[in-house]
Amino acid sequence: MIILGIDPGLRTTGFGLIQKHGSKLGYIASGTIKTQDASLPERLKTILAGVSEIIRTYHPDCAAIEKVFVNVNPQSTLLLGQARGAAICALVSADLAVAEYTALQVKQGVVGHGKAKKEQVQDMVQRLLSLPGLPGTDAADALGVAICHAHSGDTLATLGAIAPGLAKRGLRVRAGRLIG
Amino acid sequence: MIILGIDPGLRTTGFGLIQKHGSKLGYIASGTIKTQDASLPERLKTILAGVSEIIRTYHPDCAAIEKVFVNVNPQSTLLLGQARGAAICALVSADLAVAEYTALQVKQGVVGHGKAKKEQVQDMVQRLLSLPGLPGTDAADALGVAICHAHSGDTLATLGAIAPGLAKRGLRVRAGRLIG
Repeated sequence: MIILGIDPGLRTTGFGLIQKHGSKLGYIASGTIKTQDASLPERLKTILAGVSEIIRTYHPDCAAIEKVFVNVNPQSTLLLGQARGAAICALVSADLAVAEYTALQVKQGVVGHGKAKKEQVQDMVQRLLSLPGLPGTDAADALGVAICHAHSGDTLATLGAIAPGLAKRGLRVRAGRLIG
Repeated sequence: MIILGIDPGLRTTGFGLIQKHGSKLGYIASGTIKTQDASLPERLKTILAGVSEIIRTYHPDCAAIEKVFVNVNPQSTLLLGQARGAAICALVSADLAVAEYTALQVKQGVVGHGKAKKEQVQDMVQRLLSLPGLPGTDAADALGVAICHAHSGDTLATLGAIAPGLAKRGLRVRAGRLIG
């Protein structure tokens, strides 16, 4: 089973794909979709097209997306909401079931406690997926959401037994275009 | 030129289609897309599918959507943002240019001043498009956005010379399904 994890944002949307085989997890790909300064509709189109392209490329079986927290700045909250809406639209357009997890749940699922820092999430994602290097924060969060979903229903004790990651990696999407 | 106006909302998304021929405006269709209580991804899918179906049915040449104001409740703002994001995704997926207008601009464009009440917008939309009855508030707002876009660049003085509306009307979309 291939799981697509999404960490939504208007400027940077992180994505991560992992494979679950029994209790074993393997890395497939991760990266970011970046939008340039443009009109909001253009930026949402970039996110929609970017996530859709990832789905066409990797054929995930299901998806999980981070529940965003409400920002202090209401205007930012509104923008983030629209970006998240665009990412979800790409997922449901492809008929993917979409699970939602809070940042707290992701930290608990990946690191083991909800107060983990970003660096700890990156570090644990690297270990769990046997990555040769530290993933970027946005990609790590997206991979974390996917890992969280992979283990939902499982006990966290199974997190110890992770298979070596797959070799396919390094996908980067910028401004909706797949590069690298 | 056919203009699609959208008044976005998570529970109710209003839509209105008008035809512009020179300085004359004609009514084509209007209604609402309603989402039931369901998961957020399901509701966004309903909005995306509903707006996409309207586009396939009426082939608008361009679109305009109301800029939503930030709610007192940040969680509501986040939900509204996601709904608006879904509506915009349907528009940009169909390669429609999307204009954005604030509620203030719509009121100014339709009624002539920014302090107009909802009833005044409904009343003026009915007059400008020669509708036989008062449109619902969501549909009226959506038609108002379309009218505002039709007159952007024109002087408001041209608002006096409106052609009788077209006969095709009464489209209602509920839970993403076209009925009536």
